[in-house]
Amino acid sequence: MKATGVVVEYNPFHNGHLHHLKQSRLKTNSDVIIAVMSGNFLQRGEPALVDKWTRAKMALSAGVDLVIELPYVFATAQASDFAKGAIFLLEALKCESFCFGSEEGSMEAFRHTYQLLSTKKTEYNTAISNFMKQGISYPKALNEAYRFISESSSLPLVDLSKPNNILGYHYIEAAFQLNASIKPETIHRIVANYHDEAKPNETIASATGIRKVLFDEMDFTAIEHFLPSTSLNELQLWKSNFQIFGSWERFWPILRFVILRHTKEQLANYAEVTEGMENAIWNAAMRNETFLLFMQQIKSKRFTWTRIQRMLTHIYTEFTWEQLKNMDLPTYIRPLAMNKNGQAYLQSIKKNLQIPLVSRVAACKDNNMLELDLRATNLYYLGLQTDYGQKMIGSDYKITPIIR
Amino acid sequence: MKATGVVVEYNPFHNGHLHHLKQSRLKTNSDVIIAVMSGNFLQRGEPALVDKWTRAKMALSAGVDLVIELPYVFATAQASDFAKGAIFLLEALKCESFCFGSEEGSMEAFRHTYQLLSTKKTEYNTAISNFMKQGISYPKALNEAYRFISESSSLPLVDLSKPNNILGYHYIEAAFQLNASIKPETIHRIVANYHDEAKPNETIASATGIRKVLFDEMDFTAIEHFLPSTSLNELQLWKSNFQIFGSWERFWPILRFVILRHTKEQLANYAEVTEGMENAIWNAAMRNETFLLFMQQIKSKRFTWTRIQRMLTHIYTEFTWEQLKNMDLPTYIRPLAMNKNGQAYLQSIKKNLQIPLVSRVAACKDNNMLELDLRATNLYYLGLQTDYGQKMIGSDYKITPIIR
Repeated sequence: MKATGVVVEYNPFHNGHLHHLKQSRLKTNSDVIIAVMSGNFLQRGEPALVDKWTRAKMALSAGVDLVIELPYVFATAQASDFAKGAIFLLEALKCESFCFGSEEGSMEAFRHTYQLLSTKKTEYNTAISNFMKQGISYPKALNEAYRFISESSSLPLVDLSKPNNILGYHYIEAAFQLNASIKPETIHRIVANYHDEAKPNETIASATGIRKVLFDEMDFTAIEHFLPSTSLNELQLWKSNFQIFGSWERFWPILRFVILRHTKEQLANYAEVTEGMENAIWNAAMRNETFLLFMQQIKSKRFTWTRIQRMLTHIYTEFTWEQLKNMDLPTYIRPLAMNKNGQAYLQSIKKNLQIPLVSRVAACKDNNMLELDLRATNLYYLGLQTDYGQKMIGSDYKITPIIR
Repeated sequence: MKATGVVVEYNPFHNGHLHHLKQSRLKTNSDVIIAVMSGNFLQRGEPALVDKWTRAKMALSAGVDLVIELPYVFATAQASDFAKGAIFLLEALKCESFCFGSEEGSMEAFRHTYQLLSTKKTEYNTAISNFMKQGISYPKALNEAYRFISESSSLPLVDLSKPNNILGYHYIEAAFQLNASIKPETIHRIVANYHDEAKPNETIASATGIRKVLFDEMDFTAIEHFLPSTSLNELQLWKSNFQIFGSWERFWPILRFVILRHTKEQLANYAEVTEGMENAIWNAAMRNETFLLFMQQIKSKRFTWTRIQRMLTHIYTEFTWEQLKNMDLPTYIRPLAMNKNGQAYLQSIKKNLQIPLVSRVAACKDNNMLELDLRATNLYYLGLQTDYGQKMIGSDYKITPIIR
């Protein structure tokens, strides 16, 4: 059986994702699609709209054969580590290829870009740190450095100011660095911009746009033409159980509690908290009663919103620099959901896996990386602050992979 | 001006406390009554029903002239440290005497008891640890050891199985150990038992009984004959602002969050968490959706309910063994409220104080003990989980002592 991999968050699963899945199957002619999916906290450093089980079910309904959880350490990391964790897992799962969506849409440009940046690595890094010294954010410095380096090249290159192109670049870089045999493929994204708002009369909107409608209007009819009906059903089921959707705004009373429970010095121990941000975070938590006001007070040119949110995620889940340093690659494969096809595939590769397959977490002792996933799951449910959330504590121990 | 001191929690202030204040003034013929009062967390290891400002106002209305905050470190400590912190502050405040309520009611018996136990210290301690080895709680072992030691004495002794007698004993012990010049006095308590339920047709009930009625029935008419009307008014005002009263049951979602945010090993770093209780606490937090169920699962012969609650308080406020070890005596005097009389007294002793008087906390930098008080205050308000609680964050910086 031939498998291709996708790296996803599905927050929530929408028609754009469906398009990507269909194209991935066509392009690679695969029998199996494996999705490596973030758990309850995401790469943008925020809690997911709905939990990982709900999102895994959306994925199954839409044609994914096997959903694997990307451990917290990688799911909430900066792009290069996020990519490394995900590609490592897809390689470990014996995928022949992986397909990522990009604004670019052509592998040729990605290959040229990777070659350019790896041959000019020193110049590139020097340029990045020079731009950083001007007090701009890391992504902006990357962009400026890239523009500077690419001036000398006449080959077609990727526009690295586009978010999905950046992520794609990191996937390719990860595959090279891991010396992986997995083959990268890219599919042209049909939503122009990641942050676009959902527009009526269209069938594709970004997840960000869809979430915005859900938070602002709590209205399913306004988003129903952007999602498969199976996704919509899952969202409705979630809503009827949990009452609300996951967001930092909702989690704010508890996040605020956690911040103020620490001294500023202690906050600096948490992963990604750096350059005095512990002071800004603590002071702003003292003063602000909403997450939005809090963020408006601490945002700066130096750090992106996303980067700051990742600091907060790590404070919330008690994930330290020390732990970050000690975790390099995924140490287990944890399936969340599969159909018969995915199950058969997993059966076929089971004996040749390099890292353990963890179907029942209770059977896997003393794995720090896995414990972090379990903790993050519990803290997500507690953050919802609803009775149903309280009931979900420890659910990782009770729910075995969903099989359909 | 002649001052006498009382050590109080006023959770809430009731007619029994009023009786004690009147008797204290009579017995010592003092011009000024100074109350050293716990902040938002109490010696039984639980959040106060209403905050310290509200309780300080109740005290002022009932005749206390000056209310001083007992720092968190002492307010939430075992009886001997609680007593040491409180008596040290009253001595620092130049009180000629202090008056404690006891079931015993006579100083003679307390003096005999203190003499007996200090002359037979080694035997007493050996007996305590022998009884402890049988797996009973510390207070029970204390009791048994005391019974064993006192068999040889023919003098009138205090019954140390009664909670207020125990506390009184520790006050006297503290005064001796601090080599204090303050003179102990005791007043007979007119409520028989600490844990008695509030009974109609009487005017005095224990604070525990009153709280029970408030939690069970949320009904002010059922308690109005047990409290001065000024206390009742404060409770009603609190209720209309905050909606609910402070309790672990109310705080449970956040306490549960804090517990599950840690590994079991980390929990063992918090003050008073010992002998594997970190495992019991973590496991029970995973399983239980209410505080009561949680406590029922972890209670044991080995530890009293109160002792376990103190562990939880320290986990909640991030107070470690390390910090506990490094804090010996109060390092500041923090007035919460005073009347003109109390203000004049404070003015008269101001120049001769051995530790700083802190009226504005913002002016007092780098005091770890005070920072703990401020943190505990904030975390109390966040634990209430109401909008008004959120608004009170940082109030310690805004509210200067209440002067009436």
